[in-house]
Amino acid sequence: MRFDHVGVAARDAAALADLFDDLLDAPVAHEERFGDLRVVFLELDDGGYLELLEPADDGTIARYLDNHGPGIHHVAFATDDLEGALDRARDLGVDLVDETPRPGAWGHDVAFLHPRSTGGVLVEFVER
Amino acid sequence: MRFDHVGVAARDAAALADLFDDLLDAPVAHEERFGDLRVVFLELDDGGYLELLEPADDGTIARYLDNHGPGIHHVAFATDDLEGALDRARDLGVDLVDETPRPGAWGHDVAFLHPRSTGGVLVEFVER
Repeated sequence: MRFDHVGVAARDAAALADLFDDLLDAPVAHEERFGDLRVVFLELDDGGYLELLEPADDGTIARYLDNHGPGIHHVAFATDDLEGALDRARDLGVDLVDETPRPGAWGHDVAFLHPRSTGGVLVEFVER
Repeated sequence: MRFDHVGVAARDAAALADLFDDLLDAPVAHEERFGDLRVVFLELDDGGYLELLEPADDGTIARYLDNHGPGIHHVAFATDDLEGALDRARDLGVDLVDETPRPGAWGHDVAFLHPRSTGGVLVEFVER
């Protein structure tokens, strides 16, 4: 699998996007309102992304910010076969948050694995 | 800048390396004892890495595990000009953990930025 993005829980995605663009030379490649989130993708030189997630309303990320403060929330890996990747995870005994692919930000199919199975790391699989 | 790696604080780096290798098809590319840490780098298909950090002794990562539990610890970006990247960060008002490059794992020069300046994200710059 390939690195796709690091997801960051942010209190102010626009301000953080400006900072990371200046710091990393990573311009905004995409932004949207996705469910209860404002989502901003910053593109790195190699085609990887930083995804900034700001709650526009109550929800998972709002609760994450309340409990943990802002910072890195998950890491996403790109696959051309999301169903196969989930089958492999299941075979390895990994608990899945999403048993089947679901629509994610930017129109991609995504699925999350439960961090209790993966050393505390919240892993997302993405099929672009 | 390019994505270099995600650093993960792990209680058992060898077991987590086996799992991530199976899950992501990311074999071990390098491992070493670095200071008070056992460090394992797993290589992704695009040349990015997962860095697993297991404390062999007391230290920063041992304290991190005590306080936060295992999980994603930092994200690292590769640059060909680490001094220039630090100058740029300084000009942007970002607080630096390392004012100048220092030797990191795998023989690379590294420097960390303080997460209080970067939305709670612990950022590492790496010059390979």
